[in-house]
Amino acid sequence: MKLATVKAGDHIAFGAIVDNGFVDLKARFRGRCQDLRELLTQGLAGEAQRLCERAPADFKLSEIEFLPVNPRLDARIFALGWSYLSHQLETGKDEPEFPVLFSKHPQAIVGHGQPLLYPAPSTQYDYEGEIAIVIGRSGRRIPRERWKDYVAGYSIFMDGSARDFQKHSITAGKNFDSSSALGPWLVTADDIPDPSRMHLTTRLDGEVMQDSGFDMMAWDLGFLLNYISTICQLEPGDVIATGTPSGVGARRHPPRFMQAGQTVEVEVTGIGTLRNVIGAAK
Amino acid sequence: MKLATVKAGDHIAFGAIVDNGFVDLKARFRGRCQDLRELLTQGLAGEAQRLCERAPADFKLSEIEFLPVNPRLDARIFALGWSYLSHQLETGKDEPEFPVLFSKHPQAIVGHGQPLLYPAPSTQYDYEGEIAIVIGRSGRRIPRERWKDYVAGYSIFMDGSARDFQKHSITAGKNFDSSSALGPWLVTADDIPDPSRMHLTTRLDGEVMQDSGFDMMAWDLGFLLNYISTICQLEPGDVIATGTPSGVGARRHPPRFMQAGQTVEVEVTGIGTLRNVIGAAK
Repeated sequence: MKLATVKAGDHIAFGAIVDNGFVDLKARFRGRCQDLRELLTQGLAGEAQRLCERAPADFKLSEIEFLPVNPRLDARIFALGWSYLSHQLETGKDEPEFPVLFSKHPQAIVGHGQPLLYPAPSTQYDYEGEIAIVIGRSGRRIPRERWKDYVAGYSIFMDGSARDFQKHSITAGKNFDSSSALGPWLVTADDIPDPSRMHLTTRLDGEVMQDSGFDMMAWDLGFLLNYISTICQLEPGDVIATGTPSGVGARRHPPRFMQAGQTVEVEVTGIGTLRNVIGAAK
Repeated sequence: MKLATVKAGDHIAFGAIVDNGFVDLKARFRGRCQDLRELLTQGLAGEAQRLCERAPADFKLSEIEFLPVNPRLDARIFALGWSYLSHQLETGKDEPEFPVLFSKHPQAIVGHGQPLLYPAPSTQYDYEGEIAIVIGRSGRRIPRERWKDYVAGYSIFMDGSARDFQKHSITAGKNFDSSSALGPWLVTADDIPDPSRMHLTTRLDGEVMQDSGFDMMAWDLGFLLNYISTICQLEPGDVIATGTPSGVGARRHPPRFMQAGQTVEVEVTGIGTLRNVIGAAK
């Protein structure tokens, strides 16, 4: 099942993407849950699945606008740096002994199809295609072997990075308003039994810039969820962006930074394609 | 005026700390604003001041429990690393050319008097006494010379740091659940016309560990607000923790890390004292 948060008509809804459109689960749950986080918190994904099976689409895809999967301003996005050997090599970083975490604020994130905001005064706006894990259940010190119990599903992340500001601090370079994207939807974990088989491709104006199997990501997902949940209790709707493989713009010769008007796409097999156009700086 | 968020009786309220207790502004605003962030967003601090002047206290201080100044889970806490020369020297860091930002999640923060949670399995839990700026108005690219227009007031921050996890990443070391504290209140900016005259003292079980004037903090506050608001729009209730001076436990010989049962206090002249006892690891 593909779960998404969208603008449909004049309201914000969450629901499922089906063959011919969008099934408005917010309306069908009749006030029992107000957003995707509440659906996950209340363990209603199974009921959502049953509701969708017999439901006609409420909106065509052309009638909806995607928002980030969990657009709440209390969403936490834990992101990983240097988690692929290929990206460690191109950046000259040593292989880290532990995951390197940083935080993205929800204000930095747009949905699929929404315009990205060029992070002026940066002149080094770079893409990072990533696979994102969406947490489905509260967990502190999650046992490594039980990690799948805590995963609602998988989504796609474009970790927009202002490389010049990233030299000041990773938090600065990674948190420009509306400079990253998450979506279009989350694919529930039951549809992706072996996440290591996912494959990620990043394209800039159609040209392939990054291309890697998720099996090249350094961290075992059980270890990763155990590690983060040792620091803090993970909550439904939290996102873990698992880092990017080689091919970023900053490490090309000459560098290839993104420009206003370009289209950045991150495609992940089994999920879909996250596509955004870079808007002008404001 | 001292503004705080508290538990009073069986509900969460915000209001003012006066000579003899707590004035419940949430009740007095009769639903016009639900929390301190909304009070700031709606520009009601002046009206709050007038309400307090003629109000008897609704609760004694002994009847309230302090929560973080802005306890909302969408609060953002931008923290600064290595912003005092004395701390740069003790840690062997070069003087940074730009502010070094990192994020604290709201889940990492408790209020004055609430127990801190020992960040097990860390064995290097350290204090950092800091002065915090609380934002009062939305602002993007705040002009340097107009920074005071965007500051609601000042508070005190204890930036609890798991030094062993901080070696993995600053985000990991700084975000253990309930390992830091903010409070007891914010003192509105009109009561602190010259913030550079504030003086900060950190004590561990009564022993002075850090002691510095805020005039030793490296960044001009106008520059700092301009810098952060260039990255993202600052919003009412956002907090900027301005970093710590020398004297942290990790840089003593031998190191002096915090232990369960100890009391950590950060006192700032013109604001008050933030005091917390370190609870056992859970």
